[in-house]
Amino acid sequence: MLIGAAMMPHGNPVLEPEDEETKRLAEVLGKIGRALSDADAYVLISPHNVRMSDHLGVVMAEHLVSWLGFEGKELPGEWRTEKELARKIYESAKSAGLPVVDMNFAALSGDYSRWPLSWGELIPLHFLEKKPLVLLTPARNVPREVLVRFGEVIGDVIEWSEKRVAFIASADHGHGHSEEGPYGKVKESEEYDRLVMEIISENRLEKLMEIPKELVRKALVDSYWQLLVLHGLLKRVPMGVRETSYACPTYFGMAGALWVR
Amino acid sequence: MLIGAAMMPHGNPVLEPEDEETKRLAEVLGKIGRALSDADAYVLISPHNVRMSDHLGVVMAEHLVSWLGFEGKELPGEWRTEKELARKIYESAKSAGLPVVDMNFAALSGDYSRWPLSWGELIPLHFLEKKPLVLLTPARNVPREVLVRFGEVIGDVIEWSEKRVAFIASADHGHGHSEEGPYGKVKESEEYDRLVMEIISENRLEKLMEIPKELVRKALVDSYWQLLVLHGLLKRVPMGVRETSYACPTYFGMAGALWVR
Repeated sequence: MLIGAAMMPHGNPVLEPEDEETKRLAEVLGKIGRALSDADAYVLISPHNVRMSDHLGVVMAEHLVSWLGFEGKELPGEWRTEKELARKIYESAKSAGLPVVDMNFAALSGDYSRWPLSWGELIPLHFLEKKPLVLLTPARNVPREVLVRFGEVIGDVIEWSEKRVAFIASADHGHGHSEEGPYGKVKESEEYDRLVMEIISENRLEKLMEIPKELVRKALVDSYWQLLVLHGLLKRVPMGVRETSYACPTYFGMAGALWVR
Repeated sequence: MLIGAAMMPHGNPVLEPEDEETKRLAEVLGKIGRALSDADAYVLISPHNVRMSDHLGVVMAEHLVSWLGFEGKELPGEWRTEKELARKIYESAKSAGLPVVDMNFAALSGDYSRWPLSWGELIPLHFLEKKPLVLLTPARNVPREVLVRFGEVIGDVIEWSEKRVAFIASADHGHGHSEEGPYGKVKESEEYDRLVMEIISENRLEKLMEIPKELVRKALVDSYWQLLVLHGLLKRVPMGVRETSYACPTYFGMAGALWVR
């Protein structure tokens, strides 16, 4: 069964927060970790693992291994894949006609069945107790409805599982918040972030479907596609939102939110 | 244009050959490296990178980085992806209706666009001069015709390219050659290896299509699917075979073969 869900950021600043807003966000991430600490497994969707244009991914590799930090920030660690749950998500998504692939690496099982993790997974995982994982990857060039449907399938599979499972969407928002940032300052980043935080605070994720594609594109976000999957999940298992928090200490917006039954 | 092709093994014994047969195989791999050393780029298909059941993969990540050796044998190194050629192969395969995905990691370009390599790539690359690569992955649960068609598409794209390109199939054969091996001794491994070496020596790869599926399965091979892709390539650009060699110093069959125009 689904015990909760969270949106979690993956930017280095939450690891060593310097301003009050980011400290508050890091505190919320700590609360999310505690609230979901009695899960048997996490299902984590990340925009900084494998990136395929038009196929969703389900990682089947047994060992998930820290590989790539951002700006030299290393977070070593190794996690196990919850293979049975991963297989059910893959098979159900495939049966539902979704464009999905199962992904292993090197060997199909055993010590050599390994998969690399980046900051996109490692930073959320830093705030969560170590549990077996199912790692999923979104896709940008599929219709929004496909992502929502994927979330519905994931929700159904988790809900039918005997395990207590939490769903985590790794997501950062607009990346154009600062003249000094790599993308400069674009007004759409602020607009998108404000809109998304409004949608999340009101717990009306169906409104994500109304966000113009152009705004998503111009706002330079890492969050939209995972949030559509979360929306699908919450359609199947409605939950209340708790503990939302937003910070933008550098050039990109970060936010946390917790949903519990 | 295609300047040549090779089948190359990925077992540790070719790195430090101990018996005469394996020494001869390592010599042939050296000859393959020299024969293909004036390529601008290599297209390498490997069974020990990402493994998807029913989708072919084209790696678009910019930096290909050594990650996973077999039995502790590390071969450090980093290669660049020949992105334009990779994109053309992906797009052409997609246009041909093949089940193919483009694969990036972490970021779509730049320093963080990285991809892990295993022994399946690193051992063949050890014998080749360092060049930009296109890394491809096969799939086992697709019809044979799909793999052959993928090879045809790759052949066409390479042939139209202004670059001088060589195609490398990383492939080991039966894994049931020894009572002491992890899979024990199975007669089908010997049968498959003999048959494949016959097919290659005669340069009649179309006969791969006649090998019973049951034999491929029982022989516990890593080679069949990549060889079907090579067959497709050679259908489009027929070349003569040179320098075939086979060795089985432990529990699995290894072989090298070179095709040149």
